[in-house]
Amino acid sequence: MEFTVQQIAEMLGGTVEGNPTSKISTLAKIEEAGEKALAFLSNPKYEPYLYTTEASAVIVSHELELKQHVETSLIRVADPYTSFSRLLEEYQKAVMAFKTGVEEPAYMGKNSTIGDNFYRAAFSYIGQNCKIGANARIFPHVSIGDNVKIGDNVIIYAGAKIYSDTVIGNNCTIHAGAVIGSDGFGFAPQKDGTYKIIPQIGNVVLEDNVSIGANATIDCATMGSTIIHEGTKIDNLVQIAHNVEIGKHTVIAAQSGVSGSSRIGNFCTVAGQVGIVGHITIADRTIIGAQSGVSKSIKEEGTIIQGSPAFDYKQNLRALTVFRKLPELQKDIEELKEKL
Amino acid sequence: MEFTVQQIAEMLGGTVEGNPTSKISTLAKIEEAGEKALAFLSNPKYEPYLYTTEASAVIVSHELELKQHVETSLIRVADPYTSFSRLLEEYQKAVMAFKTGVEEPAYMGKNSTIGDNFYRAAFSYIGQNCKIGANARIFPHVSIGDNVKIGDNVIIYAGAKIYSDTVIGNNCTIHAGAVIGSDGFGFAPQKDGTYKIIPQIGNVVLEDNVSIGANATIDCATMGSTIIHEGTKIDNLVQIAHNVEIGKHTVIAAQSGVSGSSRIGNFCTVAGQVGIVGHITIADRTIIGAQSGVSKSIKEEGTIIQGSPAFDYKQNLRALTVFRKLPELQKDIEELKEKL
Amino acid sequence: MEFTVQQIAEMLGGTVEGNPTSKISTLAKIEEAGEKALAFLSNPKYEPYLYTTEASAVIVSHELELKQHVETSLIRVADPYTSFSRLLEEYQKAVMAFKTGVEEPAYMGKNSTIGDNFYRAAFSYIGQNCKIGANARIFPHVSIGDNVKIGDNVIIYAGAKIYSDTVIGNNCTIHAGAVIGSDGFGFAPQKDGTYKIIPQIGNVVLEDNVSIGANATIDCATMGSTIIHEGTKIDNLVQIAHNVEIGKHTVIAAQSGVSGSSRIGNFCTVAGQVGIVGHITIADRTIIGAQSGVSKSIKEEGTIIQGSPAFDYKQNLRALTVFRKLPELQKDIEELKEKL
Repeated sequence: MEFTVQQIAEMLGGTVEGNPTSKISTLAKIEEAGEKALAFLSNPKYEPYLYTTEASAVIVSHELELKQHVETSLIRVADPYTSFSRLLEEYQKAVMAFKTGVEEPAYMGKNSTIGDNFYRAAFSYIGQNCKIGANARIFPHVSIGDNVKIGDNVIIYAGAKIYSDTVIGNNCTIHAGAVIGSDGFGFAPQKDGTYKIIPQIGNVVLEDNVSIGANATIDCATMGSTIIHEGTKIDNLVQIAHNVEIGKHTVIAAQSGVSGSSRIGNFCTVAGQVGIVGHITIADRTIIGAQSGVSKSIKEEGTIIQGSPAFDYKQNLRALTVFRKLPELQKDIEELKEKL
Repeated sequence: MEFTVQQIAEMLGGTVEGNPTSKISTLAKIEEAGEKALAFLSNPKYEPYLYTTEASAVIVSHELELKQHVETSLIRVADPYTSFSRLLEEYQKAVMAFKTGVEEPAYMGKNSTIGDNFYRAAFSYIGQNCKIGANARIFPHVSIGDNVKIGDNVIIYAGAKIYSDTVIGNNCTIHAGAVIGSDGFGFAPQKDGTYKIIPQIGNVVLEDNVSIGANATIDCATMGSTIIHEGTKIDNLVQIAHNVEIGKHTVIAAQSGVSGSSRIGNFCTVAGQVGIVGHITIADRTIIGAQSGVSKSIKEEGTIIQGSPAFDYKQNLRALTVFRKLPELQKDIEELKEKL
Repeated sequence: MEFTVQQIAEMLGGTVEGNPTSKISTLAKIEEAGEKALAFLSNPKYEPYLYTTEASAVIVSHELELKQHVETSLIRVADPYTSFSRLLEEYQKAVMAFKTGVEEPAYMGKNSTIGDNFYRAAFSYIGQNCKIGANARIFPHVSIGDNVKIGDNVIIYAGAKIYSDTVIGNNCTIHAGAVIGSDGFGFAPQKDGTYKIIPQIGNVVLEDNVSIGANATIDCATMGSTIIHEGTKIDNLVQIAHNVEIGKHTVIAAQSGVSGSSRIGNFCTVAGQVGIVGHITIADRTIIGAQSGVSKSIKEEGTIIQGSPAFDYKQNLRALTVFRKLPELQKDIEELKEKL
């Protein structure tokens, strides 16, 4: 895809300074942009790049006063960041709209339906009795079990696996290799020390606007549902165990894990490599620092914790500061003991 | 599938109180059950739900004395939990038996055989010279390399990858996206600081009744075999490195990792996000707490450890309690020093 | 494949002691080797096995003086380890060369090309406008997006997913289930506490001789490139976030994670389950101990750190030693306070 600077300025309701016929074929950061790239300048910190950039054009504010000569063309708008974001979105939409229809061979079981304007890649698999909404993008090697319900505008990237009976809302994105609905880790210990598998017959429900990262795993409930509520974003390689419930608009960063039957609130932030034990409840707006181990319920909204096991993050920080000096403290104590 | 309460009671050798013709189509927890659901009551704590549940029937003990009127039908048996477990198993068996034969296109290389009553999904791949037992369930996008041996009653879920030369026993379950037999992380450091790949020509052996979680990775041995012994259960996103040997009936929870050539005993419990270094031995019945880092061999059976690095869990707990008070201790020491 | 001891000796430029017609069909460790296996003896510690091994032949040094009678045949060479390594490499080359051409059904989009002597497995998918070099090995269920560039001698194992626009150098190995180019975890927080997805339009660049482990995930850049430089080895289940840059000949062990926009130097060693926060820089030849959490830039080359948060590993070790004795220290302080 190639546009002129003039075409983009019109799209954004902006005005051109410089060459309106310059060609644009990609978007880039101002400090990295090369020929045919369009960049933007929002943070004044980056202004020096404006005078040296090789970008063919830069989106700037109507207010910006140039301090030097610029080689690049300018597109002046009210809010450069918002305008650039709009272009990013248009760009991604165009990429997604690029492929439509069925690439053969693709498999769809009986009694399954899919809405208008879909893409079903070669080697994608849809089981029986599935109902998939409009504008679905189903990439190669996606595996969708039986009786799965999926809303509109859902993107499922290559090799994601959706077990039978999963329910997925509108505008969800499932990244490559993610597994939705695998068996919970449920085994009944027997008298002889061996384990018997407890059948896991529940499912997973992802509400609208949920995003699941690459190679993340979300186990189905033993019975009932593992639920990820509206707007929640889950990063790569995260593990969500059986019967977990995660609130709305919560963010869980890479490689964190939530054990069985725990409930995490709305608007929480869980950093990377955090572990949360089973059967606890985390209040809304809780923030959990990286590599923390959460072993107890958090009852107060807005709590910030850190550590393994996790407690108040300021208290933890203070304790860690002293931790480094432990050898000196030990020496102090020895000396005190001798003196007495 | 739909059954009457009477049919289920007969299956369980139980007696019906209430409506024997009520329809049952699913199993649920007593506190979540709705219409056409069958629940059970075993733990007296849940008895209040019996009088309010919307389940169409509940399995209860012969001994249970009702304290109020019940709307739901009852199926009385000797042991409600065992009866319900039996139904869960039957339910899952029925689901698994639902699909049989080959969905085209599926690939099977020359000289490979598969036992009776199999399911080979569309886009499943079996290499050459493989021998697969009876009742195999091979889901879409499963990839099985060459010379792989698999026992009876094995379920391999969507997108699991089994490298060449792997050996899998009877009654094993491999969850979606698991990788069995990837190259060990073996690189010979060269004089110039670069690394040369050491070819990994060993394999992985899973004995009977082993379960491997979604997106878990089990590396092959450099030479010889990485072995997971009978009955051991490995959760999602676990990493087992080359030449590791894991004993019988051991449980390893999600996101834990075992480094190369370590040996873990029988009947051990490894909680989530644990790391175990290479070339050590862990005694039978060892219990390792979540997020622990195990850096030394454990010689005594039944040891319980915690922490990173891990040591006796009670001692660790006591140290952690003081850890939180370190700033106060430091202050105490300062004061003592001043006084002297 | 089967060779005689004499054939292998000739290949290695060695001399035979014993039966030159013995058959060899596999390679094994001296302590585990059975019939038709060839082992080697390099470390004198293993010499006792020489006199008891069931290997059909053992590669030994010209200098080795036998202390007892040996049953096995010997192949004498200058450097047994190097000779054995050469055989391992030949063995693996032979395995890789075994399959060539296209197994149907395989998919390749328009305007895509692949070099000589390739293997494209059944159910492998290559998008449009891809350019793949010579000797490619593309296993089942590999998914390669559009506009992907791949060098010569690249092996991509089963079910690896390469997103569109990825660039991969020569001699790279991508293990099963790895995801290259998934969206970075980028969400713009809105005023109402919800998140809006920031489109991720960058890509991933893997330079020559890079190895990516099973089920590892490498996110694309928001704009620009996530870069893994030459010779770097990344283990299973590692997470590399958007816009990260990793230097040459660096090793990152299993289950570690690097957050967005961080830069890791050349010749670094990152042990397992390490977490590195975003937007920091790690100097060349840094060594980071297992389960560490790195929260600050490392400026000095050759630094060794450990802990969460990580600091000088010797200092950390000393602090951990005292940590275990904290309850005793607390008692000491109590006693001192009483005495005063």
